[in-house]
Amino acid sequence: MSQAILLISCADQKGITAAVTNFVYQNNGNIVSADQHIDEQANTFFMRIEWSLDDFKVKPNGIEQAFRSLADQFKMDWSLHFSDAPKKVAIFASKHLHCLYDLLLRYREGQLPCEIPLIVSNHREAKKVADTFGIAFAEFSILEENKREQEQKQIDLLSKHGIDVVVLARYHQILTSNFINEFKNKIINIHHSFLPAFVGGSPYAQAYKKGVKIIGATSHYVIEELDAGPIIEQDTVRVTHRDSLDDLVRKGQDLEKIVLSRAVRWHLQHKILCYNNKTVVFD
Amino acid sequence: MSQAILLISCADQKGITAAVTNFVYQNNGNIVSADQHIDEQANTFFMRIEWSLDDFKVKPNGIEQAFRSLADQFKMDWSLHFSDAPKKVAIFASKHLHCLYDLLLRYREGQLPCEIPLIVSNHREAKKVADTFGIAFAEFSILEENKREQEQKQIDLLSKHGIDVVVLARYHQILTSNFINEFKNKIINIHHSFLPAFVGGSPYAQAYKKGVKIIGATSHYVIEELDAGPIIEQDTVRVTHRDSLDDLVRKGQDLEKIVLSRAVRWHLQHKILCYNNKTVVFD
Amino acid sequence: MSQAILLISCADQKGITAAVTNFVYQNNGNIVSADQHIDEQANTFFMRIEWSLDDFKVKPNGIEQAFRSLADQFKMDWSLHFSDAPKKVAIFASKHLHCLYDLLLRYREGQLPCEIPLIVSNHREAKKVADTFGIAFAEFSILEENKREQEQKQIDLLSKHGIDVVVLARYHQILTSNFINEFKNKIINIHHSFLPAFVGGSPYAQAYKKGVKIIGATSHYVIEELDAGPIIEQDTVRVTHRDSLDDLVRKGQDLEKIVLSRAVRWHLQHKILCYNNKTVVFD
Amino acid sequence: MSQAILLISCADQKGITAAVTNFVYQNNGNIVSADQHIDEQANTFFMRIEWSLDDFKVKPNGIEQAFRSLADQFKMDWSLHFSDAPKKVAIFASKHLHCLYDLLLRYREGQLPCEIPLIVSNHREAKKVADTFGIAFAEFSILEENKREQEQKQIDLLSKHGIDVVVLARYHQILTSNFINEFKNKIINIHHSFLPAFVGGSPYAQAYKKGVKIIGATSHYVIEELDAGPIIEQDTVRVTHRDSLDDLVRKGQDLEKIVLSRAVRWHLQHKILCYNNKTVVFD
Repeated sequence: MSQAILLISCADQKGITAAVTNFVYQNNGNIVSADQHIDEQANTFFMRIEWSLDDFKVKPNGIEQAFRSLADQFKMDWSLHFSDAPKKVAIFASKHLHCLYDLLLRYREGQLPCEIPLIVSNHREAKKVADTFGIAFAEFSILEENKREQEQKQIDLLSKHGIDVVVLARYHQILTSNFINEFKNKIINIHHSFLPAFVGGSPYAQAYKKGVKIIGATSHYVIEELDAGPIIEQDTVRVTHRDSLDDLVRKGQDLEKIVLSRAVRWHLQHKILCYNNKTVVFD
Repeated sequence: MSQAILLISCADQKGITAAVTNFVYQNNGNIVSADQHIDEQANTFFMRIEWSLDDFKVKPNGIEQAFRSLADQFKMDWSLHFSDAPKKVAIFASKHLHCLYDLLLRYREGQLPCEIPLIVSNHREAKKVADTFGIAFAEFSILEENKREQEQKQIDLLSKHGIDVVVLARYHQILTSNFINEFKNKIINIHHSFLPAFVGGSPYAQAYKKGVKIIGATSHYVIEELDAGPIIEQDTVRVTHRDSLDDLVRKGQDLEKIVLSRAVRWHLQHKILCYNNKTVVFD
Repeated sequence: MSQAILLISCADQKGITAAVTNFVYQNNGNIVSADQHIDEQANTFFMRIEWSLDDFKVKPNGIEQAFRSLADQFKMDWSLHFSDAPKKVAIFASKHLHCLYDLLLRYREGQLPCEIPLIVSNHREAKKVADTFGIAFAEFSILEENKREQEQKQIDLLSKHGIDVVVLARYHQILTSNFINEFKNKIINIHHSFLPAFVGGSPYAQAYKKGVKIIGATSHYVIEELDAGPIIEQDTVRVTHRDSLDDLVRKGQDLEKIVLSRAVRWHLQHKILCYNNKTVVFD
Repeated sequence: MSQAILLISCADQKGITAAVTNFVYQNNGNIVSADQHIDEQANTFFMRIEWSLDDFKVKPNGIEQAFRSLADQFKMDWSLHFSDAPKKVAIFASKHLHCLYDLLLRYREGQLPCEIPLIVSNHREAKKVADTFGIAFAEFSILEENKREQEQKQIDLLSKHGIDVVVLARYHQILTSNFINEFKNKIINIHHSFLPAFVGGSPYAQAYKKGVKIIGATSHYVIEELDAGPIIEQDTVRVTHRDSLDDLVRKGQDLEKIVLSRAVRWHLQHKILCYNNKTVVFD
């Protein structure tokens, strides 16, 4: 059973919900899920609607065309997705491989509706993991002086593989704006702190020094400003004076895995909308 | 600004969402929030829709009539509510007064959209609290032999005050089916355990004896079977071997207050639907 | 049954635990609880030991003298406390009274081992609460130009009441270093954010703008740098895109009450040691 | 640096702490960590003390002998462990392999201080995982009629490998008392519910049917009564009406991994004492 999913945002006004649900109904679609949100301060309307394509009168490749006049009428920002056209994901990793392993195990168990044809790393260790899971691996050693050049090769490779989404699974490189602009709101990072606390390097060491009683992890879309993109998901865990820096790292890794995998899953299920450097995450 | 709220459940079928949103739109209503859920196993559709009555073409007292034919067509279970007609709540308490105090402080701060004209107790201590907040108080001493009789007097008193909702804020009396049937899905209880664990009396003592590492509290609608009604909300807190039974009671009281107040608030906001002894709680 | 409590910190070295426990044992004391911690990075030893004074050979007022030579030998920072000599607490509040109410209700239920003889506020509203609980109230209107003068009057008043601990229960005034130095590590504040994120004013508004998925509250000792003192306790609660700024405030207030009351309780139980702008909190 | 660890329990009485810490100190041991607990209701004293063997006057193999007279004097239940003599662990798994994978990844990262020489399963699938990690694998198909016989073979195999601890990582077989008695308080199970709720089979299905708002996982030592042994650790996660049974399974698996790995780690660090079918878990 295949489903179509519409993600919509526009200035709030009367009649949007009725218009969209009618569009589906009059074409004989069965709504599987519909969710909306209005940010009154921003006067913005958000909607996610998902319907079964069984018996739907419009062919999948005609839906965009059929919906356009309605979208134009309400000046919508919108995107259309199909559950049977899973996105292609590339995972970028460095030395710490727990998030990479975690994503691949979830992928194998069917928790992530996508294809993962490629793993990229600036460290050799990730290759063994890629091999275990039978996924192509590309190593790019990144130095300050060759970063733009190497990134361009990465972009070409991603393009060759038809990659839609880039997941930074503890990838310890800061991307240039060139790379980021190629994948706007399509690069998902995990930062190992409860943002906006402890931006930048060594957040566990920062947290340890500060003596916080709770640590966190944050998954967000990547923008040019470091660790400042729209937050998708966060979670926290309690620590005490007994926890060494190593304990913080160990406890935090469990958070990182869970928080990143939730964010990736929601992105792949087309549940996330960005605005004002924040996210709406429909559940 | 006054809003109308419709709560709907019926067998799932095509076109419900479109029909309901159209009803609102064609009468010039502005949808403030719309949420739906489909339980596929139960083949049941649930909806909550809230719209502004500003410029709505149908007068409030005509909406029920106007909506009926559509409701009949889909064989809906439905109820209509208005944000400017707050429900009347009676709080029942016994000796432990923390939940009573908590609800009244939230009420005073405007967190609970209702009126609280009456406090009922089988203990004298609650009277002081009622007096502090300027609310009528009625004491009913309950014995096995006079329970039905006393409950009938309570029902009469509630009726006199026009009470819609009964909140059992640690009220240590088991209600008879006679009372329960008068207020079906309108009696909200707080049980001081993570149900279905530790049903019945002294749940903290049961938890202490069992050596659990987490305790909980559960708010639910009251049905005839003890502590077995539809669960509205639960929360938990960590305990250790260092926590005495008194510590469990103290920690648990914070849960009780938070869990009960959430459940009451959601009920008063018309966010809860019951089916199959479970709840849908729209957020 | 009265207990003595020793809080100790010193450079780590062999034999401290044995020496301290022997001191208690050889004077016929029964150890009720003993906990220690070593921060290896800081090479510092921390201990809390509590023993029953029943049959203890040294009179309470002689213990300090009896312990001194041992303390000197290990160059300890130490303090001695007695469970039957509860500390005197003054609560400072402003307009938001939920934390004040919460502390007073816990106090009345016996959860806070202290005396609360005084409530101080720069707003008149707190007086009603003080009156309800039968506690002395002092109003100090604070302006930039009279702050030092008013603070000196506060210090005099606190001194007159023999106040040991000052709890800032959402007191919206920044204290001068003059005041802070009078009560070093004895002023407990609640900040309504997950520090170090969102220091300063309007932390909920900051959190709302940032789009975080979790908000927090932090209780800490007050030092001169704003919101930067040793953290005693933190807790967090989940929020979503559906939560308005008002919702953040409402959800956060529950955190504030719980976090502040835990910190105050632990302080009064002599469970907290400060070092390097962090805390050891024995449980 | 090697450490010795003593785990002690006995009837509470004066002088135990002093006697034990003196034993260590007078033999020139440096205490790394010492923790104690008194259950007043049960009048029982518990202690964990860990000290460095550098410069300790008693040879490791003489410590048991040296400590015995003191232990006898206080009628202690006690055990002695060494940090450089890691326990040998066998993991038992069935079809669901997420906990097996999780334990092995943590083992490889050095989070579990043990050796894992053996994986046992009643399903073939686990073999691939064992091979990936280079660990011996033994398959035992278990039927009602051959259970005792097969278990005896398992016991023999465990004995041959010198196994100290058995971890049931979602092993879907009920062990006989014969097996359990061979490994008293040394078999750690993960049950996929918040015990004592939802004992037995299909706990997620039970939780789904009941409509709970929070699910949990519980790690416990195995005793003859099903899912009723001393609880070591529990954790919980929120669910809503939107979560299908599959969602509960998916969310619960993250809990299972975290809860089981914590319990195994604490057991291997000799932090757990059992009494009255409960646990003391020193942190």
